[in-house]
Amino acid sequence: MTYETVSENKCFGGTQGVYSHTSQELGCDMKFAVFTPPQAESEPRPVVFWLSGLTCTEENFTVKAGAQRMAAELGLVIVAPDTSPRGDDVPDDADSYDFGKGAGFYVDATREPWSKNYRMYSYVTGELPALIFKHFPARADRQGIMGHSMGGHGALTIALKNPDTYASVSAFSPIVAPSEVPWGQKALSRYLGDDTEAWADYDATRLILAGCRHPSKILIDQGTADNFLEEQLRPELFVDACENGGQHFDLRMQPGYDHSYFFIATFIEDHLRHHAALLDG
Amino acid sequence: MTYETVSENKCFGGTQGVYSHTSQELGCDMKFAVFTPPQAESEPRPVVFWLSGLTCTEENFTVKAGAQRMAAELGLVIVAPDTSPRGDDVPDDADSYDFGKGAGFYVDATREPWSKNYRMYSYVTGELPALIFKHFPARADRQGIMGHSMGGHGALTIALKNPDTYASVSAFSPIVAPSEVPWGQKALSRYLGDDTEAWADYDATRLILAGCRHPSKILIDQGTADNFLEEQLRPELFVDACENGGQHFDLRMQPGYDHSYFFIATFIEDHLRHHAALLDG
Repeated sequence: MTYETVSENKCFGGTQGVYSHTSQELGCDMKFAVFTPPQAESEPRPVVFWLSGLTCTEENFTVKAGAQRMAAELGLVIVAPDTSPRGDDVPDDADSYDFGKGAGFYVDATREPWSKNYRMYSYVTGELPALIFKHFPARADRQGIMGHSMGGHGALTIALKNPDTYASVSAFSPIVAPSEVPWGQKALSRYLGDDTEAWADYDATRLILAGCRHPSKILIDQGTADNFLEEQLRPELFVDACENGGQHFDLRMQPGYDHSYFFIATFIEDHLRHHAALLDG
Repeated sequence: MTYETVSENKCFGGTQGVYSHTSQELGCDMKFAVFTPPQAESEPRPVVFWLSGLTCTEENFTVKAGAQRMAAELGLVIVAPDTSPRGDDVPDDADSYDFGKGAGFYVDATREPWSKNYRMYSYVTGELPALIFKHFPARADRQGIMGHSMGGHGALTIALKNPDTYASVSAFSPIVAPSEVPWGQKALSRYLGDDTEAWADYDATRLILAGCRHPSKILIDQGTADNFLEEQLRPELFVDACENGGQHFDLRMQPGYDHSYFFIATFIEDHLRHHAALLDG
């Protein structure tokens, strides 16, 4: 379990790094980004995993979200993985921006030809954190998770299934009910098959309906000018499930904001403060 | 003098826009970015022009610097032009990242085939501001200018030659003495010819030696781990000229920082506060 350094840049007194390693889980080489805050020079710090959305790599959040400023102030490590397996040997659907490479949906695929490489759930919850805790000054007993769009779906489902591992969870414009929307139906049917029962494990709303709970309040920001709001995101489905099930949440509808990183940059400070408050406890 | 909207995104309560227009000065279509802070809804606000470095477009600063947060707090408009004329009809040196497209060096070229289109000095100081003040809520009597690397060279030379127009000036890792370094010698000899006397008007250090002064303190940040520091940037040449000539300046050598936007993002707040303090007066 080794890795190589692609780049390291000093940023807000800490280090923004990009690293690569050979993933056993995914059967390919992967890159990931880690921001190490200045406080980590003296002791391991809490860590927040960021999961990106469709078409992204580890780079988008790293260069566009402006998260390093507040992570440095709060002393948070931030880890941003890629969104799918990569490389010429990995099967893809070149005509789709929303399936295949750049669109792993944080599931472990069970259908050919995807099942060999598309194991992003196990990668993000197992292999990658293990590498991080071995080589970086991050505390395994202080983990949070957040993400955007497809990555918001990933963060919510992973936290709901692993509440003892992730003490904090938040999302920007998450796909909260993939079983009910075109993006999710396309991806889950091809990665997992047509039996929609198999999808329930990767659907935040259905996890709530099935009894999963997270002990913290779930923070969600959603722009009202988001082009994907009504067809793909549908936060009202998650709200109904949480309200009926007694899951604490805070859905903030942000007037005039869209689906872009300009929206994420605006509210990332609030999210990092949310995580730090829960992880420092 | 019209323009078209390419994109607008709400960001920190203001609007990050990208616009296009047909430039008479450059003889081609150009894009530029404008951040309009929330305060500009009620009254025109001070404006700071950002000039980018080699290979950049209007996009790099806009998505990577994280400037919108502090610009929104301080009520500053920020305008980021492209770095050269663009389009298939504009001559280029496709083998050079440091000459031709993406490398206009903020000069008015006098040599063929560059002289027809490469008029970035007149564009940045004349045509573009005129368009901005006609269509955007920016105050022509409250202008500042800043930039990075080649754009730091642009900001320093433009401010020194137009101290009545630009009340504030700052730079990140600027090319302070283009006549003395490879990047500058390559560009100025081809845009302006081999007679180095013609270069003096576009060399911040030589402008100081020739008697140009700026009434404000010039703020410069320079990373000590910048790969270009010793060969291309050479801030000591500018420091000597300023100290001998009585030009106030504040050169901050930032330990461990490099030439990247991670460096710019770290210190952009200080630069915007520097401009706001001078422009609000």
